[in-house]
Amino acid sequence: MPVQLLLATHSDQFAEFHRILTAKFTEIGVDVCVHREASDPESIDYIAYAPDGPIQDFRQFTRVKAILSLWAGIENLIRNSTVNCPVTRMVESGMKEGMTEWVSAQVLRHHLGLDTIVQSQDGVWRHELMPPLARNRTVAVLGLGELGSAAANTLKELNFQVIGWSRTAKSIPGIDCRHGLSGLESTVEEAEIIVVLLPHTAQTENLLDNDLLGKFKRGAVIINSGRGALIDEDALLTALDSGHIGHATLDVFKVEPLPANHPFWFHKSVTVSPHIAADTRAETAAEVIVENVRRGECGEPFLYLVDRLLGY
Amino acid sequence: MPVQLLLATHSDQFAEFHRILTAKFTEIGVDVCVHREASDPESIDYIAYAPDGPIQDFRQFTRVKAILSLWAGIENLIRNSTVNCPVTRMVESGMKEGMTEWVSAQVLRHHLGLDTIVQSQDGVWRHELMPPLARNRTVAVLGLGELGSAAANTLKELNFQVIGWSRTAKSIPGIDCRHGLSGLESTVEEAEIIVVLLPHTAQTENLLDNDLLGKFKRGAVIINSGRGALIDEDALLTALDSGHIGHATLDVFKVEPLPANHPFWFHKSVTVSPHIAADTRAETAAEVIVENVRRGECGEPFLYLVDRLLGY
Repeated sequence: MPVQLLLATHSDQFAEFHRILTAKFTEIGVDVCVHREASDPESIDYIAYAPDGPIQDFRQFTRVKAILSLWAGIENLIRNSTVNCPVTRMVESGMKEGMTEWVSAQVLRHHLGLDTIVQSQDGVWRHELMPPLARNRTVAVLGLGELGSAAANTLKELNFQVIGWSRTAKSIPGIDCRHGLSGLESTVEEAEIIVVLLPHTAQTENLLDNDLLGKFKRGAVIINSGRGALIDEDALLTALDSGHIGHATLDVFKVEPLPANHPFWFHKSVTVSPHIAADTRAETAAEVIVENVRRGECGEPFLYLVDRLLGY
Repeated sequence: MPVQLLLATHSDQFAEFHRILTAKFTEIGVDVCVHREASDPESIDYIAYAPDGPIQDFRQFTRVKAILSLWAGIENLIRNSTVNCPVTRMVESGMKEGMTEWVSAQVLRHHLGLDTIVQSQDGVWRHELMPPLARNRTVAVLGLGELGSAAANTLKELNFQVIGWSRTAKSIPGIDCRHGLSGLESTVEEAEIIVVLLPHTAQTENLLDNDLLGKFKRGAVIINSGRGALIDEDALLTALDSGHIGHATLDVFKVEPLPANHPFWFHKSVTVSPHIAADTRAETAAEVIVENVRRGECGEPFLYLVDRLLGY
């Protein structure tokens, strides 16, 4: 009897994922039937899940062996009380690559003052805009998971002084790794550009609040492509208004799409980016789903299994 | 008797170079007298030279052992018929680092469409601006000298498909290296972003003319931080007007500062950057000058000796 996989994605993505998954299962010789709808929920073995897909109540899936998230952020599943099976995160090379490219571009943009150059096409030759070297610029990356450590390594290769911060102690060659609350405070006190790539957990919600923002170096730039919930939006607006924070480039928000009347759109020191830093790429994401179904069927441990107490 | 060094720089730079050079000569124990003016030209052993400095006629320096350029570009010295001693170029880590950072930033800016994001702060959520991955973007670097090969390597580390082109055959791991005229044509036919980092020689002057620009992929982006003389400006404007070239980000020009009425300032598809991609940093440049004086005094071969026939 074939393995029954429910592909619970937004309808725009269904056809592409269905085609790639079916081909990859055939390739590795695992007999899998990929469903769009769960006409018989009790027969479903695995659910490939997107938060913007059709399934939010998992109670009817009584035999499901795992929920395999198509997204890196899994806070919806963690908070969903109808989930009582293993959950895996999505970690795939396309998302990591996209995130690293976006973060590198935004850090270099602020480092070199590109906006000023692009906006100064007025016939005035401003040679004094010559920027400092990256080796004299300190950049912090908050969060050293798959995405954060990839971004930190690339910033290091670009010659920046990189401080990495994570909840628990980590070690990455060439990067000044710090952890815990005192490590966080010293990090934001020293860095001129702060990249936020933390997961959204009970501990990180509104982590960048009035208190912490007050400890940032004056004029610091914040780049958030982690989660919107990490930042207290009112506190950030206050810090931007006073000039204490120099600029915020934000790709993620508490409510997405960001409402058209949100003050971020109209603030001169905010760049709104429409959640394009990184996305699951169907081709590479399908490989993770296929591998986890294979592992589940062979009784091997899942890749990227979520610790529901830690929240990631 | 101390070595006599004439420091022929723009007056703005004299004090800083004088201080650093004097300290470094003392450090290595070479007795050198650093002059601002040549009251006795026939006594001068070495000239540290900047094109915007006071010396253009070298005939009176009858005993000079070498002219040590403070700039990477040495076309002024090559064309100066009063020079008849060895000439060295400036190759120093600060310039290479600055150039690599500037090129990486501009390539990522065009790759990710940052201008569109920065200029679209209007309340409209454009998730469709999601960019492709660097691994699916072909970038060419024309010129594989010290600066070009450093930029090509960093673009490779950022995951771009990199084609490198040079006059004579070169080999760089991970980079599709091509050479000669047929290699140049295939390079510009395939790349979406073309970085120009060639030296200015008789062979490269106006290399990007109507003919070559006509072979570029439609919509290609040109990033020139090599020399202004490499591009036929009228040909580029024509290609930009027709949309055949999508954008040009230019840091160098035939006349600098770029005159306030030059059409580049007002063209919607041109970004004028005021020659800030890379500059000689006094600290690291002084090390090269000091080392070449030491070598000259010990009879060792100079670093970065210019081949005046090749022009670099």
